[in-house]
Amino acid sequence: MQKKRILIIGGVAAGMKTASRLRRLDSTSEIVVVERSQRFSYGACALPYFVEGLFDDLDEVRQTPTGVTRDEAFFERVKGIEVLSGCEAVEIDRQQQRVLVRCHESQNTEYLLYDKLVLATGCQPIMPAIPGMELSGVLALKTMEDAEKIDQFAINAEHAVIVGAGLIGLEMAEALVARGLSVTLLELQEQVLGGVVDTEFASLAARELSKHGVNLCLNEGLVRLEGEAGRVCRAVTKSGGYSADLVIMAIGVRPETELAAAAGLQIGETGGILGDQQMRTSDPLIFAAGDCVEVVQMQTGEQLHLPLGSTANRQGRVLADQLGGATDLFPGVLGTLIVKLFDQSLARTGLSVNAAQAAGYDPESILISGPDRVHSYPGVKPVVIRLIVDRNSRQLLGAQMAGPGEISGRINVIVSLLSLKGTIDDLARLDLAYAPPFATAMDPLHQAANALRNKLDELASSYTPFEFQQRRQESQPMLLLDVRSPVEAELVRIPGATLIPLGQLRERLKELPIDLEIVPFCKLSLRGYEAARILLAAGFKKVRYLEGGVVAWPYELESGTRQEEA
Amino acid sequence: MQKKRILIIGGVAAGMKTASRLRRLDSTSEIVVVERSQRFSYGACALPYFVEGLFDDLDEVRQTPTGVTRDEAFFERVKGIEVLSGCEAVEIDRQQQRVLVRCHESQNTEYLLYDKLVLATGCQPIMPAIPGMELSGVLALKTMEDAEKIDQFAINAEHAVIVGAGLIGLEMAEALVARGLSVTLLELQEQVLGGVVDTEFASLAARELSKHGVNLCLNEGLVRLEGEAGRVCRAVTKSGGYSADLVIMAIGVRPETELAAAAGLQIGETGGILGDQQMRTSDPLIFAAGDCVEVVQMQTGEQLHLPLGSTANRQGRVLADQLGGATDLFPGVLGTLIVKLFDQSLARTGLSVNAAQAAGYDPESILISGPDRVHSYPGVKPVVIRLIVDRNSRQLLGAQMAGPGEISGRINVIVSLLSLKGTIDDLARLDLAYAPPFATAMDPLHQAANALRNKLDELASSYTPFEFQQRRQESQPMLLLDVRSPVEAELVRIPGATLIPLGQLRERLKELPIDLEIVPFCKLSLRGYEAARILLAAGFKKVRYLEGGVVAWPYELESGTRQEEA
Repeated sequence: MQKKRILIIGGVAAGMKTASRLRRLDSTSEIVVVERSQRFSYGACALPYFVEGLFDDLDEVRQTPTGVTRDEAFFERVKGIEVLSGCEAVEIDRQQQRVLVRCHESQNTEYLLYDKLVLATGCQPIMPAIPGMELSGVLALKTMEDAEKIDQFAINAEHAVIVGAGLIGLEMAEALVARGLSVTLLELQEQVLGGVVDTEFASLAARELSKHGVNLCLNEGLVRLEGEAGRVCRAVTKSGGYSADLVIMAIGVRPETELAAAAGLQIGETGGILGDQQMRTSDPLIFAAGDCVEVVQMQTGEQLHLPLGSTANRQGRVLADQLGGATDLFPGVLGTLIVKLFDQSLARTGLSVNAAQAAGYDPESILISGPDRVHSYPGVKPVVIRLIVDRNSRQLLGAQMAGPGEISGRINVIVSLLSLKGTIDDLARLDLAYAPPFATAMDPLHQAANALRNKLDELASSYTPFEFQQRRQESQPMLLLDVRSPVEAELVRIPGATLIPLGQLRERLKELPIDLEIVPFCKLSLRGYEAARILLAAGFKKVRYLEGGVVAWPYELESGTRQEEA
Repeated sequence: MQKKRILIIGGVAAGMKTASRLRRLDSTSEIVVVERSQRFSYGACALPYFVEGLFDDLDEVRQTPTGVTRDEAFFERVKGIEVLSGCEAVEIDRQQQRVLVRCHESQNTEYLLYDKLVLATGCQPIMPAIPGMELSGVLALKTMEDAEKIDQFAINAEHAVIVGAGLIGLEMAEALVARGLSVTLLELQEQVLGGVVDTEFASLAARELSKHGVNLCLNEGLVRLEGEAGRVCRAVTKSGGYSADLVIMAIGVRPETELAAAAGLQIGETGGILGDQQMRTSDPLIFAAGDCVEVVQMQTGEQLHLPLGSTANRQGRVLADQLGGATDLFPGVLGTLIVKLFDQSLARTGLSVNAAQAAGYDPESILISGPDRVHSYPGVKPVVIRLIVDRNSRQLLGAQMAGPGEISGRINVIVSLLSLKGTIDDLARLDLAYAPPFATAMDPLHQAANALRNKLDELASSYTPFEFQQRRQESQPMLLLDVRSPVEAELVRIPGATLIPLGQLRERLKELPIDLEIVPFCKLSLRGYEAARILLAAGFKKVRYLEGGVVAWPYELESGTRQEEA
């Protein structure tokens, strides 16, 4: 009897995960992977950190944790999987259940029959059709080859221009600053991480970029690249030009679906291959996983193209189960993302307020800041947390976090609650792990949940930093009330604030105008909220505290000069 | 009209949280706190780190994050709360709704009337009735005064004996080693953290203690203390004696319930005040929160006494809501704990296998180890994770974790899932945050969930380290098969293993006895599992891989000598 053959096109994350899991489930079928590159089964997400210089041997990204390179021999001997590297799938013939494969070196072509076919063709960086894209020194970061090229160019380059301030753009900004280049980051939108985080978090990221010398240019689109002797030397936008001997294109990626589309498989509205929870395509013999497929946003049912190594791995496992007779499903994503940016981290999951509104929820949100562990414990750092909840059901809808402090574990708590449709009350009641080196007795997550419950329960009204900034720019009459201590106010201030320390507030209420809206704030959010409660109890009607205090304030701060108490 | 008075006995965590939240909810009632000590509203959990020398000013534990000391004046001016410090509640007169209070300094007594009474009397270290407990240098760590005394004694002491290897005992071991003392840790049970973590995790902790020079003596109970000139000099056990010029008693705490019991309030079976989810006691006018009350284990309904600063704060908030007209509830605890021990952390939540069995579940478990982030990213460290699940419902029941790697966020993911009764499949499908500085593409939590699913789905059988060690000690015939590379095996080995690298296994199957049980393992668990799948596919019937590999192996390891390939 002829062995069943599972043919897999693409051998980076989803393809190799499928192959490896399938071999463990199915010891007899022939498993063949067709991979365009010579190097495969690598962790592409680590490539920016190779460019940064955090590890020296690029091959580490395709090694096992114990240092074995995952090459053809490794897959054959250890895994029992055949990898045809340097071979490109040219055409899928669904009628004959075969794929035309061309070997790069020999240029020979050959049909490979399949019983089941897996598409793990990944995605490609978008390279816009503007003049100069062909110049040397204009690169994107997707493959190991790309990382090698950027690494080489970075040795002698002085001025890098990165086009696109998404995840890769930010990671590359950090990497190239670490390599000693002057870095200009061009972003067409009015904020970094557009569509990923809200404006306040984007502003915190922008501040971090500036702090580390990155020249961030928002609302700036690349018009053309200019070169000298074939090498890029200048990036030109509508408003000006920037020296550039290295240009990183990071405006986005598109799923690689040419093979699938040519074979008549159904393509989704985002451009990715359309699949189901079992990773089946519109052909019952063909499956797809990883960066080439569309995913479903679990909360809204919306189709997304959101390529991630983690998603690819989870999908690959589900796909292997499907082929290997086990049962599992891929339920979709929450759009969870995390990125390190110099000394900051940013993370998000679920829906923003705007996305929640669009999806028909009645969202409410809170922004808080607080220390990530007990304040006397060494290494304590602040975190900023925004939670989004539905007013009616009190169900959690999403979160965004930033901070030098620990946020990856905290965003994952929200991921867990979102997955099981937990409420803000569930979050507030979690028996989270507490000891001074790891958390505060009331974890910042608890603080955020309680602050949001206070808002839902109408114990307090508040402004987000963005809302407050907007109202101030509209010249709405407001008294911004700093209830910190004079010592704190000497260090750093939000411009235009009047200082009355919280401890004096009860005695000095008569100094405050009863008819003007009062916006108290402090370093974090706690005293600001407490001041609001005192003012409301004293009969002030228009009181809204400023969420997140000075620590979360992403706009202009004054520092240095001494200010007398008001 | 006379103001309503809320009287609170005890002003550390639960009492002050209740007072502060209540003031924000209720601006008119009189809120009076009666507190025995001069210092109050402090973070007792930070005291071991003061002794360790991680911060210099003990007062930091009672300061706000911005450095303001929470003294009587702070509570009066900032919070509108009266604190009677240095005053002890002597008797509760429920009929007259009053409490007899004695001022330590003046020795005057006075009755304070209450409309509502809150008991937040905390707990006390257990000091066993053995000879020598009265000697100078014999201390427990509970209050700021205790921390000061220990700090002073530690300056000139050379030999510390710590009695009890629970959380406080371990934290004090770390602290006193850092202070340069030779430390002996006596534990009556056969493992550290008894009742907290399983034997493997206890053994990992024991190894960490030894690594840092702590003389850990298990199965050793303190019989008496001997002194010279009134100062302790020797701790005597049944099997010997230990030099000791400082003795820390850390065998446990008991809830302080004398007042409550004398007033006829109902006391629970663990000795704590019996309360409900609204923190009500058996008297409708009296409430209780914090270390003096019993809590309910949410999964089993079992009553526990588990004093924690985090629990006290959450309970205090619920209590304030109850008094202030808001509604919230305290649903109980999962027994979540985390502790830092030198370069290791240990954490647990929910049920162990034994506790799950006792509660009527049909538990299955897995132990895995893996890197906490992408292995090429700097700072990568291993974590060890045990998950416990119910076979029938696939519901998660508990987890234990250890590692130099990041576990606090990961245990909190399990806390979240336990709270919402999530399954092992829910865990495996979580859209966790992934980027190389924070996680692996398949997070260790995913690895653990998938390994456990493989076990539930009978793709693999395995031994826990403890099970394997037991069977070996019973001289069960087994072949322990090391499938790592020769290079890895040269560095460190589990004694008695035969080496066949995974890449050679398929060709060398004939070297293996078909009738003997084979137990493959590797550094983590992945190749061990893969080897098991290869052996099963090749017709070997008795195959069980060793969970967690070398990284999680808590028993004897061999190192250094070169070993030829088998």
